[in-house]
Amino acid sequence: MRVEYINSFISSLDHTFQTMLDCEVERGQPALKDDLSPKFDISGVIGLSGRAVGTVVLSLSMEVAVQAASHMLMCEHGEIDDDVVDAVGELTNMVAGAAKSQLDAYQLQTSLPNVITGKDHEVRFPSDVKPICVPFVTKWGPLALEVGFSPVRESALV
Amino acid sequence: MRVEYINSFISSLDHTFQTMLDCEVERGQPALKDDLSPKFDISGVIGLSGRAVGTVVLSLSMEVAVQAASHMLMCEHGEIDDDVVDAVGELTNMVAGAAKSQLDAYQLQTSLPNVITGKDHEVRFPSDVKPICVPFVTKWGPLALEVGFSPVRESALV
Repeated sequence: MRVEYINSFISSLDHTFQTMLDCEVERGQPALKDDLSPKFDISGVIGLSGRAVGTVVLSLSMEVAVQAASHMLMCEHGEIDDDVVDAVGELTNMVAGAAKSQLDAYQLQTSLPNVITGKDHEVRFPSDVKPICVPFVTKWGPLALEVGFSPVRESALV
Repeated sequence: MRVEYINSFISSLDHTFQTMLDCEVERGQPALKDDLSPKFDISGVIGLSGRAVGTVVLSLSMEVAVQAASHMLMCEHGEIDDDVVDAVGELTNMVAGAAKSQLDAYQLQTSLPNVITGKDHEVRFPSDVKPICVPFVTKWGPLALEVGFSPVRESALV
C-alpha cells in the first residue's frame, strides 16, 4: 500500500498546531488503525472527495481540546461547549485544507467539519479502507490523527 | 432559510429503506436540530462537497442497525460488529448518493462513509450551520436523518 499521502497530513497538523496554537507536537509512530489505537473523547471529522475519497479525523483528549480552543479564542474554556466544538472543527478543517493543497493531483474538496463528542465514542471506517493512525503528544496532552484515503479509479471518474 | 433540499434526502431515505430493506418508514416532523432532537447509538456520517458543502448523518437505534444489516447481508446479526458497521455506512452512502443525483445543480461529491459508535455520542455541526433533523419510525424502531447543507458562494468557487 502506498501511504506517502499521510506525510502531507502529518506536516499539515504540525504546521497548524505551531502557527495557530503556538504548540509543538511530538509525533509517535504511524500505524494502521486497530483496536489498540488511541481513542479520545472529542473528534473532528471532515470528508474528502475528488480523485480520492477519504476522511480526516482529529481526535483530542479533553484537555487538548479546551486548551486549543482557549488559545484560538483568547478566552478561557473549561469544558466542551459550542465554542470548543467550533474550534475543534476549525482545526480539523485547517489540517485537511493545508494537506489538500499539498495533494493537488487528487483535486480534493473538503466537506463540512463535524465534531463527535461522547465518552468512548469510536469513528469507524469501511472495512475495505485501512486508515492510518498517527499519535502525537503536546504540552497539553495526547491527540491522534487518523486518515482514511482511497484514490478513485479513473474509470469511476465521469 | 431555503430548506427544499431536505426533501431530496427524505425521499432518498424512503426509497433506500423500501428497496434495500423492504422496510416502510413513517416520517415525523422535520425540525432544526437542537438538544431535544433524538440521539441513537450508531450513526453513519458522510460528507458532501461541490457547489454546496454538507454532511448527511443517519442515526439508528441499535435494533434498526442490526435488523437492517441482517436483511442486507441475509445473515442474522445480534450486535454491532464490522458487518453491521459496513451495512450502516453503505445505507448512509446510498441515501446521500440518491439525493446527490436529485440535487445535480450543486454538483455534489460524497466522501467515505464513516460510522460512529458509542452510547450517547453526538454528531455536532459548526454553529453557523443549522442542520435539519427528521425523525422516522420503522417496524424495527426509530431512526433520525440529519442533514447540514450550505451552498457555496460563487465567489468561493475557483
